[in-house]
Amino acid sequence: MGNCVDCLRNFFCGTKNTNVRFSLPAVCFIWQIAMIVLFGIFIRYDEESDTHWAQHKKENNITSDIENDFYFRYPSFQDVHVMIFVGFGFLMTFLKKYSFGAVGFNFLIASFGLQWALLMQGWFHHLDPVTATISIGVESLINADFCCAGSLIAFGALLGKVSPVQMLLVTLFGVTLFAVEEYIILTLLHCRDAGGSMVIHCFGGYYGLAISWVLYRPHLHESKRLNGSVYHSDMFAMIGTLFLWMFWPSFNSAITDHGDGQHRAAINTYLALASSVLTTVAISSLSDKRGKLDMVHIQNATLAGGVAMGTAAEFMITPYGSLIVGFCCGIISTFGYLFVTPFLEKYLKLQDTCGVHNLHAVPGMLGGFIGAIVAAFASEAIYSKEGLISTFDFVGEFADRTPATQGSFQAAGTCVAIAFGIVGGVCVGLVLRLPIWGDPADDNCFDDEVYWEVPEEEESIPPVLEYNNHMIHKHQDISESNFSVEQS
Amino acid sequence: MGNCVDCLRNFFCGTKNTNVRFSLPAVCFIWQIAMIVLFGIFIRYDEESDTHWAQHKKENNITSDIENDFYFRYPSFQDVHVMIFVGFGFLMTFLKKYSFGAVGFNFLIASFGLQWALLMQGWFHHLDPVTATISIGVESLINADFCCAGSLIAFGALLGKVSPVQMLLVTLFGVTLFAVEEYIILTLLHCRDAGGSMVIHCFGGYYGLAISWVLYRPHLHESKRLNGSVYHSDMFAMIGTLFLWMFWPSFNSAITDHGDGQHRAAINTYLALASSVLTTVAISSLSDKRGKLDMVHIQNATLAGGVAMGTAAEFMITPYGSLIVGFCCGIISTFGYLFVTPFLEKYLKLQDTCGVHNLHAVPGMLGGFIGAIVAAFASEAIYSKEGLISTFDFVGEFADRTPATQGSFQAAGTCVAIAFGIVGGVCVGLVLRLPIWGDPADDNCFDDEVYWEVPEEEESIPPVLEYNNHMIHKHQDISESNFSVEQS
Amino acid sequence: MGNCVDCLRNFFCGTKNTNVRFSLPAVCFIWQIAMIVLFGIFIRYDEESDTHWAQHKKENNITSDIENDFYFRYPSFQDVHVMIFVGFGFLMTFLKKYSFGAVGFNFLIASFGLQWALLMQGWFHHLDPVTATISIGVESLINADFCCAGSLIAFGALLGKVSPVQMLLVTLFGVTLFAVEEYIILTLLHCRDAGGSMVIHCFGGYYGLAISWVLYRPHLHESKRLNGSVYHSDMFAMIGTLFLWMFWPSFNSAITDHGDGQHRAAINTYLALASSVLTTVAISSLSDKRGKLDMVHIQNATLAGGVAMGTAAEFMITPYGSLIVGFCCGIISTFGYLFVTPFLEKYLKLQDTCGVHNLHAVPGMLGGFIGAIVAAFASEAIYSKEGLISTFDFVGEFADRTPATQGSFQAAGTCVAIAFGIVGGVCVGLVLRLPIWGDPADDNCFDDEVYWEVPEEEESIPPVLEYNNHMIHKHQDISESNFSVEQS
Repeated sequence: MGNCVDCLRNFFCGTKNTNVRFSLPAVCFIWQIAMIVLFGIFIRYDEESDTHWAQHKKENNITSDIENDFYFRYPSFQDVHVMIFVGFGFLMTFLKKYSFGAVGFNFLIASFGLQWALLMQGWFHHLDPVTATISIGVESLINADFCCAGSLIAFGALLGKVSPVQMLLVTLFGVTLFAVEEYIILTLLHCRDAGGSMVIHCFGGYYGLAISWVLYRPHLHESKRLNGSVYHSDMFAMIGTLFLWMFWPSFNSAITDHGDGQHRAAINTYLALASSVLTTVAISSLSDKRGKLDMVHIQNATLAGGVAMGTAAEFMITPYGSLIVGFCCGIISTFGYLFVTPFLEKYLKLQDTCGVHNLHAVPGMLGGFIGAIVAAFASEAIYSKEGLISTFDFVGEFADRTPATQGSFQAAGTCVAIAFGIVGGVCVGLVLRLPIWGDPADDNCFDDEVYWEVPEEEESIPPVLEYNNHMIHKHQDISESNFSVEQS
Repeated sequence: MGNCVDCLRNFFCGTKNTNVRFSLPAVCFIWQIAMIVLFGIFIRYDEESDTHWAQHKKENNITSDIENDFYFRYPSFQDVHVMIFVGFGFLMTFLKKYSFGAVGFNFLIASFGLQWALLMQGWFHHLDPVTATISIGVESLINADFCCAGSLIAFGALLGKVSPVQMLLVTLFGVTLFAVEEYIILTLLHCRDAGGSMVIHCFGGYYGLAISWVLYRPHLHESKRLNGSVYHSDMFAMIGTLFLWMFWPSFNSAITDHGDGQHRAAINTYLALASSVLTTVAISSLSDKRGKLDMVHIQNATLAGGVAMGTAAEFMITPYGSLIVGFCCGIISTFGYLFVTPFLEKYLKLQDTCGVHNLHAVPGMLGGFIGAIVAAFASEAIYSKEGLISTFDFVGEFADRTPATQGSFQAAGTCVAIAFGIVGGVCVGLVLRLPIWGDPADDNCFDDEVYWEVPEEEESIPPVLEYNNHMIHKHQDISESNFSVEQS
Repeated sequence: MGNCVDCLRNFFCGTKNTNVRFSLPAVCFIWQIAMIVLFGIFIRYDEESDTHWAQHKKENNITSDIENDFYFRYPSFQDVHVMIFVGFGFLMTFLKKYSFGAVGFNFLIASFGLQWALLMQGWFHHLDPVTATISIGVESLINADFCCAGSLIAFGALLGKVSPVQMLLVTLFGVTLFAVEEYIILTLLHCRDAGGSMVIHCFGGYYGLAISWVLYRPHLHESKRLNGSVYHSDMFAMIGTLFLWMFWPSFNSAITDHGDGQHRAAINTYLALASSVLTTVAISSLSDKRGKLDMVHIQNATLAGGVAMGTAAEFMITPYGSLIVGFCCGIISTFGYLFVTPFLEKYLKLQDTCGVHNLHAVPGMLGGFIGAIVAAFASEAIYSKEGLISTFDFVGEFADRTPATQGSFQAAGTCVAIAFGIVGGVCVGLVLRLPIWGDPADDNCFDDEVYWEVPEEEESIPPVLEYNNHMIHKHQDISESNFSVEQS
């Protein structure tokens, strides 16, 4: 255990020590134990996942088990789950030597985040005032996955520049901020945001950007050799892209109203995404002098349509409206990768590894405002009286709200999300600047070697090198001996 | 904008200019804008995805939201969606330097194709005569994905030899032909073809082959070095294979009748696919003198059982009947890869990159005829009176049709699909021969460099090269100096 | 056919002949034909997948097609299917030169195993005494996939050391043993084991370990160069890990009771898995002196929580109980990889390629005992009278069983699974030692070259070699000529 003393010294000394042997296990253990204790105190099965379901059915005149919310939401939940773990994870594997970190840390922080999210969201939205417990069901699992997504988006901006301990902190604070922000936007302002343009993408994007801005590394160019892709890492990233793209209709429809709500949200998202692909390809080709496509655009900007439909997908935005949203966002996002990311890095000192500014922050913000506009123009003529009420939940204390008012509240919600992202991100960034979290040095970024045992390279390389060296040396000897002979 | 003049010159000049900087964005933009306009005019939500669903429920005595078609079809839709984008996309990544093109162009053309398919299929099948609009729901999305599949199959035959602009044309015409052919087969001939053996695979296969035949490249061997796989590209292709294989039961059951129809189609397809795998492995091993398996067979022929069950899956083909279909098609498809593809290339001047002849054209045709036979032998004893009517939709003007008649119509439908594929393919191929579409030169095929910005190779290589070059030059100098010294 | 004589000679001679050109196709054909015959005799559609469904609905007062079991189970089935083919297949691709074998043989044996499983499980559980037929539906397909999982787990212990023919034998006997063991545990002992901690993981793990022990190779170190991963093979393995991890809630809930049973099983598994990830990361980091994470642990031990919840997931284990299970199993499994696997290899002569001891055998056994404890402490207070009966199926001859008795039977079931695994595995191992199955020599293990046509390496290497060789030879000539000149 002499090693432990070493760890402690590393832990409190200020040099760039990337050994997380003490801090990472400590954080994992402490937080997981805290989760167990808090779950023991607060979390219970809800009436649809409890063995009392049979009674519940009788009391509520439910005739069939198929009415259990599980069957309405579980397929969508599984799609969302794939997006969180494979989609986000693999999307970030594009760097040539940071694939382990991308997919592995994504795995770690999502696994922690979803537990903390169940608690945080439960306290804010589902705390039973009598028993002081939180009842969870399949919708809670979807919401927990959503909540993680905010922090995973932030991870995109920080990719390769932070330690796993820092990412666990980003997630802890990110989930906390998310729950507060979500409570303000969805409950107090009574906004609708089923696919989370505002609460997930806009918040998560600005949260990550703000942290990255505070953690600005002036000498990051020292790792430039690793800040790029290779052929196969781009292919792994396409796995992430495609699973995100294919399952985004499930993401935006997972927690919308049963029946037409889920149905319409899926259709709208499907159309917006298809439209994004064509404009992304168009701009990507236009931007290269030989007309060649850039994988960075295809991997990212094609998804912008889904992000921007997060709020409006459940509204009557119309099929062609969805296409227009995708059309514009594909263009805006690709332009972002071409011009805005380099600009931000050069002039605003903002290093955004995955370009979350272009994929999440801006399309999320636009999505919030698109939602506001569509809500403001809602009418009984289009929605029917019943449909208008159920879509915007104009019941109880909000029974008198008009679509126009709803629209302005939606817009206000977007601003709240941005504010939470930026202010929260700056605060968290300052915490992360403490020199105790094991982040890598500037010339050591984007490198799995720092936190992973990386296998040696394919053996096909060394023999070539060795063989040639061997031959060369042989000749060198010969040549040199010749030379000397001649000279003599 | 001086560049644009250059583009225009390239555009109209006859040399092999692969710069698509003008044509690709132009096509993408024009077509996407056309889609938006046409969607605005024609496409509406259907009654199950509209906010009027609550009224619709009341009027039709639907007691629960779970009766919304969304819950019957959405899980299957998502599986089909994965097959289209990940399945087809990754299946074609087996080439060592064409993975970006395979997965990227697949992404592009499917995204365009599904929009055009919603319109084309809508006009033919769902146009409301009063309002002149098309109502779409989740079943329309599945059908649109199916419709794209035809063009993606054709892409398999053309892989590596065409430009993205050409593929967009192939898709535009392919979807159009598909909709017409589907209308003739399903509506006029009243065939059943839930999994599309005829309308998708048979049509798509022959369509691609006919185009490829017209575009024959006598000097394609100049790209031979790139027309093969490497270890990891074969692994990426297996991702495509497996997702196609696993989700094929969803493909064949996605639009069959609610209840037993979907259930039976899934079971039959599952069994046929399992059977295909064993016979594919058997023939692949038999064909090599050391008994070694060939990845090309495992990646493709294992799927033949699913293709061949496309028509009959919803019929009472019996479980062992399904196994027999898979058994035969695994053998036939593997033999195709071993003998027929080389034969076609050598004697018929038909270059079929992915072997769609063996995976789609022939098994699809067989599937059509298998469906015809199974339909012809249907009887009330096996199906029950009610079952026979619902399975073959013997209602309205077709109420008097007998199973035997149905069988002959099914066979006729298969012939229609083949005819449409071949004739349509030849016509489209002639259009593609115009020298303005930016297709690659013969020595430039199967190479992502042409249309993609490809990242530099893993840095482990260059140092070897550089180092050696450096050393060699050094010795060369020495040697040469020696030589001169001696000569003097 | 002179080749065939050669095959026969190889077949009966005792040297390490890895040519499976005769044996592999023979086994595939014979078995597949046997399946067709047996399916023809025994297998029929059940009432929910037969065209008589409409009548069945009427007779049973089923009002909607959505009540068809297909809609309760199909989404879960598809997730399980992905776990079997992509999950297990890709999890084993981590070896640098055995990815084809991992994913290809997994594909082969699962495709055979599921057919045999439908028959074996049908005979034991669903044989109609009157018609002597077996009715299959979607639940049968799930069970067949489960049954294969046992043999696929065993494959993990044998990976790289056996021939495909041997694996087909392992699967034939494995599925047979599985069906018998399952009949004893689920029917005779009336245990509950929805996710198969006992019947799948515990049995499969010990079965594979016992076979591997019998097949001990003292000179396996001769293949040591290939018994490891490279960067990209670890990434492919992560695809397997993540799909297993994400879909494990579907695995454990696929065949539980409709309604709350499926709902609760999914929630519990989701939580246990999340908890496993954090403790796996903690122990992995602690175990390295620089705190670096090991991909082997992340790929495997993170799944232990799902394995251990296989029995208890459908019980009222409570959310925090699930977290505790995941917490402990993540630790135990990672310790297994660190200490137990090396120990087993050194002292017990047990070579376990994938460490199934730590991922399946031990967590499965623990899962069995956890299930026993949770069952023993079940009470009407927690479950409600109705819930207790339906959860543990205390009906018919088991109506009087108490939770405490149930607990002891569950524990007994676990012991039965272990016994079947070990005894069955030893017997099968002895059969596999016959020198006729084409297994590789000790210095030839973990190498795809033995059974696969492997594409040549990326061309980026040879040019370097060739170029250099060329240059070198040129200089060599010069140098040598120099040398001779001087000498003369």
